[in-house]
This record gives sequence, structure tokens and C-alpha cells, in this order.
Amino acid sequence: QLSGITGKLRNRISKKRIIVLCADNGVVEEGVSCTPQTVTASQAVNMTKHLTGMSSMAKHFGCEVEVVDVGICTPYDCPLILNRRIKNGTENLYKEPAMTRQEALDAIGAGIERAIAAGEDEVSVIGVGEMGIGNTTTSSAVLSVLTGLNAEQVTGRGGGLTDQDFQKKKDVIDGAIALHKPKPDDPVDVLSKVGGLDLAAMCGVFLGAAYKRIPVVIDGFISVVAALCAARLCPEVKDFLFPSHASKELGYQLAMNELGMNPYLLLNMRLGEGSGCPLAFEILDAACALMNGMATFDGAGINDEYLTEIRKQEF
Amino acid sequence: QLSGITGKLRNRISKKRIIVLCADNGVVEEGVSCTPQTVTASQAVNMTKHLTGMSSMAKHFGCEVEVVDVGICTPYDCPLILNRRIKNGTENLYKEPAMTRQEALDAIGAGIERAIAAGEDEVSVIGVGEMGIGNTTTSSAVLSVLTGLNAEQVTGRGGGLTDQDFQKKKDVIDGAIALHKPKPDDPVDVLSKVGGLDLAAMCGVFLGAAYKRIPVVIDGFISVVAALCAARLCPEVKDFLFPSHASKELGYQLAMNELGMNPYLLLNMRLGEGSGCPLAFEILDAACALMNGMATFDGAGINDEYLTEIRKQEF
Repeated sequence: QLSGITGKLRNRISKKRIIVLCADNGVVEEGVSCTPQTVTASQAVNMTKHLTGMSSMAKHFGCEVEVVDVGICTPYDCPLILNRRIKNGTENLYKEPAMTRQEALDAIGAGIERAIAAGEDEVSVIGVGEMGIGNTTTSSAVLSVLTGLNAEQVTGRGGGLTDQDFQKKKDVIDGAIALHKPKPDDPVDVLSKVGGLDLAAMCGVFLGAAYKRIPVVIDGFISVVAALCAARLCPEVKDFLFPSHASKELGYQLAMNELGMNPYLLLNMRLGEGSGCPLAFEILDAACALMNGMATFDGAGINDEYLTEIRKQEF
Repeated sequence: QLSGITGKLRNRISKKRIIVLCADNGVVEEGVSCTPQTVTASQAVNMTKHLTGMSSMAKHFGCEVEVVDVGICTPYDCPLILNRRIKNGTENLYKEPAMTRQEALDAIGAGIERAIAAGEDEVSVIGVGEMGIGNTTTSSAVLSVLTGLNAEQVTGRGGGLTDQDFQKKKDVIDGAIALHKPKPDDPVDVLSKVGGLDLAAMCGVFLGAAYKRIPVVIDGFISVVAALCAARLCPEVKDFLFPSHASKELGYQLAMNELGMNPYLLLNMRLGEGSGCPLAFEILDAACALMNGMATFDGAGINDEYLTEIRKQEF
């Protein structure tokens, strides 16, 4: 797959970058998340200091982390965060559309721009992460529309919820979809009505990576829903996607099935942020090491007459 | 798990070593393998030159590779291979026991010795690989006895076989077990009658790693059968075992189930050698990076009252 993307038989994963799209979601006022909304801003800042799960691994494995604010609503002071804020968080999608179509397009555009910048910086592989309290709700809502399944079938507990709040989360998703009737064949409509600025911008990164022919790694549940939006907008995007770890979120495998993919890593994680990307990059790196270092049968002095015979049969 | 093994909260994977146990299996004269027997020796030599799949990745990721001859039957000239040869390959287990009980014990002892040497060299983590044409046959036979399942239920095609040769392989396994009647509750008896010198020595590495309290990574099918033998001899060994990638061989998951484990990596590999170990080491390394670098909720400035509430409930 790497060779198909680059057109080169032997490749090298030299510059690795995780692009983390951060935004707040107005729907949190419905009580769909266990975590205070201020955590979006504080964790975005913590990522620049390599204090979070993803960023501590990224630092260790030599991956750049680019933190992009596409809609954080809590003020913070951190010049290391790239300001591409479309608005100060989305509206509460349970009551009104999360954003306008133009805002969704602007967020997608911000993501495309960051992927193009990665291409200009000669990044070998991009990972797509996120930070946005409430974004398992928006991702579940988007997945529900794209698959035609209801909230019960696609929604997990996210960062953790009581039974009562979990039911509320599903009611909010079904209610919002009934209210706004997003068009399943128009991902921009879906993202604008029941999605988020982080999701839309992530979708843009996947589109931009494919446009620049850069391999791009899907993280967990939110990331795969964004990848699915990108693939619905432009099916050729699929050729540039690589999986990382399986998410415990119910909808993760559903979205992966839609993309015809399976995860490389089973680590029972439910973290997000882009935390699957550092190890997925190591897997791509291992594939390059094999391709670059392993001898052919001829080079290894192995007679492969029987193997040639075997390959003619199906097994 | 790492902390439990070392007794330290924060750990570091500094020195990584893959110990590759190499031996020939007399049963190949029954036509159970697609590959000429000489490949055991040639690939053992190639490993020392980093030309094989496992060793090209090991070189890239900075893992030491220790190639140990416990019973290669083809002459070779390579001083980098450690000579612990018990005998020049096993007997044909379809006709007579693969080896004597004493030879099996000697092979186990050779493995224990190499694990102890790794401990003296302050190795942080050991991987257990192999090279031995015919060793999916011996592993399937050992697994069949240990689980009480028949050859049809535990045997895969190994490196690749025609339909006819695949049936022959299963007949050989069932026939050998019927002939020698190895005792399921005596792993040394099983290894000596229908196992191999590589399998027995690998079993020894797992035992020795546990004895020296060194984390030890299981590779694929042959490796997990050896780990199961070690765990049957000494159940405490399980606490020191880490998985790596899933093997396509049928018996792999059966052996993992017996150990109560699941693989970390799903890469559709059927290579062996220890090829899952370099990436598994990176996963352990990532776990250390998280433990060493990630802030606590307090350190990250996150109020966790709701999360504390959630943890009281089961989800």
C-alpha cells in the first residue's frame, strides 16, 4: 500500500506528524459527557507539553504533534496551539444545527490546509487525532446518519457515563437527527447539522492527505468517523488510509466495516487524541524495514520450486 | 504487568533480545513441509546477517538477535551462531520418538541457560523465535496432546502445502500420537516423543525468563506452543508472558486460549522466526512511555469528581 501511494518500492518513514484537531461541542450542555468542557482547552495545552497519553508516546517515538484549535470555547494562553478557530464551539445540536454549512466547509478547509502544510514539510505519514469534550456524541450522530442505524446501535459510553446519562446521550442523538433530518448522501450536511468542528476538520485532513498522496493513519472512533466522511466525499481517499488500534467504542468497528478495514492493534484502549498513531507509525516503519532489508529467495539461497508450485494452488 | 514483574512503577525497555532456537526435525522425510531441510541452516545463517524478515526488523528497531543451534542437521560455517547442539536433528517421530527424555531435558536446559545469560546481560525483555523446517508439524502434534484435540482440529498448512501433503501432515500427527502415546500431563514426555529440539529449548527460554523475572514475548504458533509447555510445567510462567502478533496458523488461538491471552497485533502474518517480537517490544516501550510521561488528573489540571463517581459503577 505504501509503495502504491509513493510509487517507490522501498520507502522510509522519516518524518511523522500527528495533527490534533480540537474543538468544543455545544451539545455538552445536555449532559452527554462525564468530563467538564474546560478539559478540551486544558488537554489541548497539555498536548503541547507532552503530558497527555498520545503526546507522551509521540515524544518518545519522535513524532511531531501539531495541535490545531478549530473551535475551542474556553480561553487559554498557549502560543504553541495553531489558531484556526472557526467559532467558539458549536451550537447545541439537540436544539439547533451544530453549525452552518459554510462553517463546516471552513473547518474542512482548515484540515485540508494542515495536510497540505504537512506535505510541504515533507512529512512521510500523518496521524489524525482530536480533543473535544462531547465528540463521541457528535461522532455517533454522524455515524448513525451515514449508516442508517439508530443511536442504540452505534453509541458507546465515550469517556464513561452513568446508565442514566448514557440513555440521555442516545436520546439526544436520535432527537437531533429527527429534528434536523441531515441528508445521508451529503456528508457536509451531516457534519454541519449533527457533527462538530473537530470532526469536520479531521475529515479535511484525510482529504488533504489523499490529495497530497501522504499515507494517513486513523486513530480511534472519532477519527474513523471523520475518515468515513472523507471517503463518502471522495472514495479514492480509502487508498491512503491506514488503521491503528481498535477502539472499545461500539461504533468503531461499524465505521471500519464501512471502510472495509480492520485494526492492526488490539490494546483495549478508549483514549482517542491520536493515541493509536505512534504505534501504527512503528508498524509502517517495520513494513519498510522488511521491504528494505529482507533478502529475496535468490538472495537467501533458498530454492523455491515447491513454493512456486504451491502458489499456483489456492490456499 | 511490567510493574508487577520488575517491582518498579516506571520501567524502561532499554536492551531487547530475540533468542532464536534453531533445529531440524526428522519428520520432514514424511513430506510434511514445503521447504527443503537445508533452509533451517541457511536461514539461521541469514539471521545473523539480518537478511530474514525478523532480523531485518530487529536490526531496524535495535533488537539484539541471538541465534542458537540446538539441533541443526545441515553443516554450515557461521561463528555467529551459538553452538548448543544436542543432536543433529530429531528422529522421524512418525516412526520413533523424536528424542530421548534426557535429550529433551538437555534442550530445555539450553534454553534456560540462554535466558539466564540474558539476565546477566541486563536484557530488559526477551523475544522467543525459532527456525526449524517441519516445526509446525511438531508444534501441532504437541498441541494436540496438550489439548486433547485431534490433528484436524489443531493443524494448519504451515509454510504452505498442497491439499494432498496437508492431509499427509495431519495423518502423520495422528499416527505419531497413536504410536507413542505421550502423557498429556507430562510436557517433557510430549516434547521428547512428538516435539522438537527447538520447541524444547524455547520452552526452556520461557522457564528461564520467568526464573530471572524478565518479561518475555511470545511470537507465533511454534512460540506459543512452547510457552504453553512452560506454563504447564510451571503455571507462574504466565505472569511473565506478553503476546505479539496473531498467527494465521489454526492452532495459535487455541494455544492462546489455553494461556488465557490474546494477541496485540493483527497483521495476517505466517512467518515465525520471532518476527512479532520487534513490534511487541515497541508496544511495551509505548506502555513505559505512557507510564513515565503522562500527567495524572491532578498534574493535568482535570477535575475528576464525575469520573470518581463513574468508577464506583460498573461499565
